[in-house]
Amino acid sequence: MSSTPILPAVEAACVAAEAAFDTYRATSREARAAFLERIGDEIMAIGADLIETASRESGLPTARLEGERGRTVGQLKLFASVVRAGLWMGVRIDPALPERTPLPRPDLRLRMIPLGPVAVFGASNFPLAFSTAGGDTASALAAGCPVVVKGHPAHPATGELVAAAIRRAVAACGMPEGVFGHVTGAGNDVGVALVQDPRITAVGFTGSRGGGLALAKLVQSRPVPIPIYAEMSSINPVLLMPAALAARGAALGTAFAQSVTMGVGQFCTNPGLLIAIESEGLEAFVQSASAALTGAAAGQMLTQGIHDAYDKGAEALAGSADVETLARGLEGDRSDFGRAAFFSTTAEAFLANPALGHEVFGPSSILVRCKDEAELKAVIAGAEGQLTATLHMDDGDEALAEAVLPLLERKVGRILVNGWPTGVEVTHAMVHGGPFPATSDARTTSVGTLAIDRFLRPVSYQNFGQALLPPELRDGAADVPKLIDGKPSLG
Amino acid sequence: MSSTPILPAVEAACVAAEAAFDTYRATSREARAAFLERIGDEIMAIGADLIETASRESGLPTARLEGERGRTVGQLKLFASVVRAGLWMGVRIDPALPERTPLPRPDLRLRMIPLGPVAVFGASNFPLAFSTAGGDTASALAAGCPVVVKGHPAHPATGELVAAAIRRAVAACGMPEGVFGHVTGAGNDVGVALVQDPRITAVGFTGSRGGGLALAKLVQSRPVPIPIYAEMSSINPVLLMPAALAARGAALGTAFAQSVTMGVGQFCTNPGLLIAIESEGLEAFVQSASAALTGAAAGQMLTQGIHDAYDKGAEALAGSADVETLARGLEGDRSDFGRAAFFSTTAEAFLANPALGHEVFGPSSILVRCKDEAELKAVIAGAEGQLTATLHMDDGDEALAEAVLPLLERKVGRILVNGWPTGVEVTHAMVHGGPFPATSDARTTSVGTLAIDRFLRPVSYQNFGQALLPPELRDGAADVPKLIDGKPSLG
Repeated sequence: MSSTPILPAVEAACVAAEAAFDTYRATSREARAAFLERIGDEIMAIGADLIETASRESGLPTARLEGERGRTVGQLKLFASVVRAGLWMGVRIDPALPERTPLPRPDLRLRMIPLGPVAVFGASNFPLAFSTAGGDTASALAAGCPVVVKGHPAHPATGELVAAAIRRAVAACGMPEGVFGHVTGAGNDVGVALVQDPRITAVGFTGSRGGGLALAKLVQSRPVPIPIYAEMSSINPVLLMPAALAARGAALGTAFAQSVTMGVGQFCTNPGLLIAIESEGLEAFVQSASAALTGAAAGQMLTQGIHDAYDKGAEALAGSADVETLARGLEGDRSDFGRAAFFSTTAEAFLANPALGHEVFGPSSILVRCKDEAELKAVIAGAEGQLTATLHMDDGDEALAEAVLPLLERKVGRILVNGWPTGVEVTHAMVHGGPFPATSDARTTSVGTLAIDRFLRPVSYQNFGQALLPPELRDGAADVPKLIDGKPSLG
Repeated sequence: MSSTPILPAVEAACVAAEAAFDTYRATSREARAAFLERIGDEIMAIGADLIETASRESGLPTARLEGERGRTVGQLKLFASVVRAGLWMGVRIDPALPERTPLPRPDLRLRMIPLGPVAVFGASNFPLAFSTAGGDTASALAAGCPVVVKGHPAHPATGELVAAAIRRAVAACGMPEGVFGHVTGAGNDVGVALVQDPRITAVGFTGSRGGGLALAKLVQSRPVPIPIYAEMSSINPVLLMPAALAARGAALGTAFAQSVTMGVGQFCTNPGLLIAIESEGLEAFVQSASAALTGAAAGQMLTQGIHDAYDKGAEALAGSADVETLARGLEGDRSDFGRAAFFSTTAEAFLANPALGHEVFGPSSILVRCKDEAELKAVIAGAEGQLTATLHMDDGDEALAEAVLPLLERKVGRILVNGWPTGVEVTHAMVHGGPFPATSDARTTSVGTLAIDRFLRPVSYQNFGQALLPPELRDGAADVPKLIDGKPSLG
């Protein structure tokens, strides 16, 4: 047992975050943007030690982690540009109408303000980009919210290296110390205390469905409930359309095998569900995918626990009466190596047994064979909410694609044509979110610049004198986009 | 007992709403805008019968109801203009970067889509503007969501007249019938069944804290939880600042008495809490307010139940050891007439006893006397979330106003200077919302054009061919504002 009490550490971090909030949210957009950029610079300045530590703790290869570091730093810089541009402030000005009858209209001005201190729970599978200084932290800091990160126990040293980099940026930029806090601990106590602390005003989480639902329950039963953004579970349906299968079934099978095993399948956007109508092209797909997966090497998974849960999930599918095992990858050398798994079932069985549609986190996927378009539509309509859906289509598939698009829009946050869902761009038009249980709140995204909106709320100022107004709401403040009497203006 | 089973009626309305959804959301912006305008026209076409019925059921005077009808119809027309302008679609386009290394960037395009069928619970105190065709209904229909209204049992005939007007607009505009449903019943069964129906995707509610919290619990424990926007409870602190009190304490007292008794105090934005530092000006305020309120006539409240709850709340305050009764208005002629109540207490007592800060829905207000600025700030910091806060200030109050503004921003959705919080403009920069328990979701507003965002969520389209893209996302579709590679463009 540690002699340091952990819960007082949580409370201290939250107290400091609350104390820092008003100072931090009052910083200029330029100062806040420079702070985000400095965090990126400090992360780069750690150098090879960060990559080596993360690789040792996660088992992920260094090339992948170098890419992830680039993504993390790029994300911070993108949010810096967002902070500078100021669209997130959502400025709206309705000038007074003193002559209006029967009553004059008052002067009304609106801006978005940050919610307050935010708790962030990083993911095991992205020790950099979805963790200590990941998308949740970057977007919350961009919004003007102090952040308290619950360090992930799967990569504690990586987390501490990044936390120290953020603390250096805080000091270098003269930000109040409490703007960033980092609390750790292997059990649930730390996280439970964190989301229940009355100073915390929102929660960002990336992880398992069980973990996300447990946190959601906790925040909803607080005396003052708060928003939670939990990104939880998705099997990312891929629709293989008839013309595409006829034209290139075998090639699609090979590409699929590559996608499902990438990173040992440990992506929220892994293609875990294939849906197709029986055809010769589908058989060609199955043959080439099975061949590729049968020869696929096993890979080290992030933790032994993740491996064991994966193995159990794959075994359960393999043992299901309605499921055929099409392929298993090569055995691994170690107990934490995951082998690919490729299953198939019928639409009827899939619709009758919801367990077949649950996420198996790792390199596993199940093909649902449909007799016709009606069954294919029924499978889509019966699926749970997802982060993504993918259409593989060719000339001749347009009518079916148009018919299923409205169904897919209701189920997912992102729809791809002729690609694979892994690989999530950090950009303005990205949605990494989706209906429950993909996330706990489909109205948002956890990747991309729209993520900043999660940590903001509107305040309206009525009949304020110019001096008392926030700078961006004053007359002639032309540096942010705004709505004036409902008409968009660029600045 | 009624021979008509009510729960099948709820299910039928939800099934019809779900069936109508895809057709309705695919209507053109122009068609949807014309539909909203037609609803307004049909409401006006009911004529005097609507005003008479609403007055008979609510006890509200006809002039007030005529104003409320104007507001209701104006609100529908404002949302029609919002639908046409298209900013709500939140279009974002990130063009492909095929030459990017190491990997090309795909083409990504984002738009907001409606959530699906929405359940609306209208308020007792606004039988038109916050009811059947009120702000929740107008904003949900504008977003592209079918609506199922739970008619308020306090004004059933009014609700049915408006529902019939909406149905006529549905027919006249060729909209699918299920776009609007209306279910009724005096008990809780109808509302419970409605928010638990799996086809309902969001809930709008205006009413009591108890009712809102009960509904929130129900929606959060659904197999698929959904957003709820419950506007519940607020006592709308009014800060009387030293210089303002010194300059015009007596005049402020008279104005306050008028505001707190307007509509027999039955507004969410009623000024139920006054906060001030002891001074001669404050005594002048108390004297003039007390004199005005002592002579104030009682008024008919919306229902006997609302009256009885008001009486109980006012009696509880009057009987509290730490509370002084400054004034009571004249007795009423009938058992459902409410008399004004004006209380005072100390900052110390207010901070020690949270019950003194609970809403007493009706013409009641409590003055919190503070010894100094520190106590005044402590009272603000200790208050619950509110819809509004008001500053009465004069030359010399600027420093104190600046000091309390950050505190107020964290507590409320709208801050007014030198006005009274009753009277909520339906416009672009309005926020009628605020931190819990004012509402269940501070990230939004239930009045004003920003309310449409409550019923939308983002979807991203990756590498879509032009033909499959929604019209507003196609190349050259210049008719809605958008972000292109992060840069705002007007259309």
